[in-house]
Amino acid sequence: MSAPQGTTPEGTASSDTAIGREVGLALPRFEPGWVWLCGAGPGDPGLLTLHAVNGLQQADVLVYDALVGPEVLGMARPGAELEYAGKRGGKPSLKQQDISLRIVELARRGKRVLRLKGGDPFVFGRGGEEALSLVEAGVPFRVLPGISAGIGGLAYAGIPCTHRDTNSVVTFLTGHDATGATPDGIDWASVARGSPVVVMYMALKHLDEIRGRLLAGGRRPDEPMAIVSHASLPDQRVVETTLGACVEDAAAGGAVAPAMIVLGEVVRLRQALDWLGAVQARAAERADA
Amino acid sequence: MSAPQGTTPEGTASSDTAIGREVGLALPRFEPGWVWLCGAGPGDPGLLTLHAVNGLQQADVLVYDALVGPEVLGMARPGAELEYAGKRGGKPSLKQQDISLRIVELARRGKRVLRLKGGDPFVFGRGGEEALSLVEAGVPFRVLPGISAGIGGLAYAGIPCTHRDTNSVVTFLTGHDATGATPDGIDWASVARGSPVVVMYMALKHLDEIRGRLLAGGRRPDEPMAIVSHASLPDQRVVETTLGACVEDAAAGGAVAPAMIVLGEVVRLRQALDWLGAVQARAAERADA
Repeated sequence: MSAPQGTTPEGTASSDTAIGREVGLALPRFEPGWVWLCGAGPGDPGLLTLHAVNGLQQADVLVYDALVGPEVLGMARPGAELEYAGKRGGKPSLKQQDISLRIVELARRGKRVLRLKGGDPFVFGRGGEEALSLVEAGVPFRVLPGISAGIGGLAYAGIPCTHRDTNSVVTFLTGHDATGATPDGIDWASVARGSPVVVMYMALKHLDEIRGRLLAGGRRPDEPMAIVSHASLPDQRVVETTLGACVEDAAAGGAVAPAMIVLGEVVRLRQALDWLGAVQARAAERADA
Repeated sequence: MSAPQGTTPEGTASSDTAIGREVGLALPRFEPGWVWLCGAGPGDPGLLTLHAVNGLQQADVLVYDALVGPEVLGMARPGAELEYAGKRGGKPSLKQQDISLRIVELARRGKRVLRLKGGDPFVFGRGGEEALSLVEAGVPFRVLPGISAGIGGLAYAGIPCTHRDTNSVVTFLTGHDATGATPDGIDWASVARGSPVVVMYMALKHLDEIRGRLLAGGRRPDEPMAIVSHASLPDQRVVETTLGACVEDAAAGGAVAPAMIVLGEVVRLRQALDWLGAVQARAAERADA
């Protein structure tokens, strides 16, 4: 821990970024030809980590996904290039293989490449695939974890993904596989039995089929469920429903992708724990006064 | 989004902290008598969020757990009081109920109370219980999510908790319940069948029993497992093992609590993706040159 000045705890050179000076940490220097695979969190730019800001303040190129917002991109150092690599259901976009090739190419040209992904790169974010491409190409890299929407996004809706009286187990799953279909690889019956709380990413499109599988696996139709669209962003929208009514309520309630869906008794805690709603109500009262 | 100056996107007053100015964000003002329940991440202070630093720069009192390190506490504003509320197996410490009472008491005295917890408050962190105590007492609060060790800590060991070729499902569970015993509430057989990747918090002590349950549930003894002690900290230690040999290898390899334990094929990716080991090896080479 007693690193020489200008050195990070792991022995590499530290950056001289404004963010590192501000918080008094020896954050790593971004060397040319490196890629940093970085999670930008669920949306609220206040959920960026210090490592992410340290990357933004040094990167030559940001290669960013659809869910990375303008306030985050605005933290890039002046002169940094911005490349959109977004993928969104139905819209034309770069393929995963093209993105991997592109970040390798940029690194080989000596750029400091910050690959910015929504949420966390390793939670249904295909960060592992991109990292393997970098390894194959001999490009050095770091991984900068981010807040995953299944945890932090639900917290903004007042829903803890675990609670002592409710569950010692929580399962995260993705609602569509590489082909866009519901993953056939999921043992839905075991998930239904084994996990009191199920948190679903990218599951809105196939919610009808997923509901059928979870009901067939023994989950009750009256079990509480919440659908949190644009979690942690100013236009966050929460639909509280039940497993049995979720498809109809999602449509009626205006649920839109990207959305996090959570099934389980923890959803009931939102009635007490909707802190963001309470904060907004207080702000509105004050504005009226 | 076009908030008046000095106002956050949710309509509350913004702070005038150095961190907010540095990144150009309207981060919330910490009002007297409020509690902010804040996740400090797995250990590396670079994994703090901007919201957490914004809280540290305004809080009157930090009530912090054992896993919150000195660099994090060092970011508190001058004059802030530090109260240790740590709990560690076997050692005397404040009980959960006492902690909840204490933060309520401090808030009622008009303090800005930053409740700092390792990881994320809502992932086996008992943040929900503390939040419910605040609601009952009428104390206003916010939740500031943090990076959970089961995601970000494993990333520092080069292990993605999900990978496209491996798993569309990941399960997080806690290895001991409120009494310190293995949770009886877990349907181990269903978890074993339903979740290709199982990430275990606080499971080192009961690993022998957990191994038995997972093997009985059909998991193979040669399935890869990793035990990551002090994840993301300079003394991080990774024991690579198998389900069948994990108890003996944990002892021989010097695994110590706090540790994250992960079972599943994703563990094999560490061979290629151990980016931190690669970073350290490069730094050591440079130091020798």
